[in-house]
Amino acid sequence: MSEPKATNVHWHGGEINRLERAQLLGHGGATLWFTGLSGSGKSTIAVALEQALYQRGVLVYRLDGDNIRLGINKNLGFSAEDRAENIRRVGEVSKLFADGGVIVLSSFISPYIADRQLVRELHESDNMPFIEVFVDCSLEAAEERDPKGLYKKARAGEIKNFTGIDDPYEAPSTPEVHLRTDQQSLEDEVQSLLTLLEQKGLIPASA
Amino acid sequence: MSEPKATNVHWHGGEINRLERAQLLGHGGATLWFTGLSGSGKSTIAVALEQALYQRGVLVYRLDGDNIRLGINKNLGFSAEDRAENIRRVGEVSKLFADGGVIVLSSFISPYIADRQLVRELHESDNMPFIEVFVDCSLEAAEERDPKGLYKKARAGEIKNFTGIDDPYEAPSTPEVHLRTDQQSLEDEVQSLLTLLEQKGLIPASA
Repeated sequence: MSEPKATNVHWHGGEINRLERAQLLGHGGATLWFTGLSGSGKSTIAVALEQALYQRGVLVYRLDGDNIRLGINKNLGFSAEDRAENIRRVGEVSKLFADGGVIVLSSFISPYIADRQLVRELHESDNMPFIEVFVDCSLEAAEERDPKGLYKKARAGEIKNFTGIDDPYEAPSTPEVHLRTDQQSLEDEVQSLLTLLEQKGLIPASA
Repeated sequence: MSEPKATNVHWHGGEINRLERAQLLGHGGATLWFTGLSGSGKSTIAVALEQALYQRGVLVYRLDGDNIRLGINKNLGFSAEDRAENIRRVGEVSKLFADGGVIVLSSFISPYIADRQLVRELHESDNMPFIEVFVDCSLEAAEERDPKGLYKKARAGEIKNFTGIDDPYEAPSTPEVHLRTDQQSLEDEVQSLLTLLEQKGLIPASA
């Protein structure tokens, strides 16, 4: 990983802190990190959870390839180094959002344990809630869904280093949440995440 | 591969949009971009505005060269290329926050017109409110303050390419707000920004 280059910098003690933002919003900030194969259902769950949280009055924001790869990470490619940097930057952005009071839903394949561990440590070193959600699904089921036709292209050799085909997916060993999208209903998955957020005191219990 | 743009409408059918987040929060998201010399008062104003907005129930978050350079931009130095990339990334993060519903206060020397113009275009191309605040102050006054002792080091040759000393500051020609921190009171400056936010309909008018 890159060493810090900047010197002469110091963290500003802000007038308004994380706790005060939580008081304003009525809930805490946190990062929910959805990891899993392409087609495993990460975005589906994130969108459904976003809707459920919004209905409860929670400020929630989703980060995914749509708004990251086309924006802050548009100058990154798909080399091993760039993929690590992609996840590192998303981790830092997620942390800023969580600090800002938002429940951020970050959906990225993020296939490597080391990259995810770095993101976890970024959060936990500043006592920022970090919840790793393993969106588990058999390769067969993901490939059967293939919503974007990417597996087909990977099998045809048109995409190289595709996770699950010719690049590994390193499954989390101890994620906070382990969903089995080929066995559970979307409603159950969303409910389990809401319950966890309630149990952690990040959102108020539902009426 | 990262997640390319989803094409299946069912995947993102439940998205919560910017307007819905604004309805939840009671105010809109926006980026206020504070540009000016080191020591001009950017952070001082941002901190005071943050406090004033919070008191009105507005979700506000500050980004500055210090907390960003320790995080997402810790692998960037101070070469011309790295400085441009620093501002680009901060612009993208600011835009994400504004989209998320937050009033984000971004304080960066950001001395080059081209870099600031890029950040403006990032916002305006997606109809994201962008307010450039020129924190104007004579070099003499900024150097007299020298809160971090950086001008002294720059004069001694210990820091190279320091804005105002041996690197140019390109002043905005048509900023949305032009503050003169060596002539105005902090209270007046904050009030002018609050008034502008009200006029733009981004925050409710005060009672």
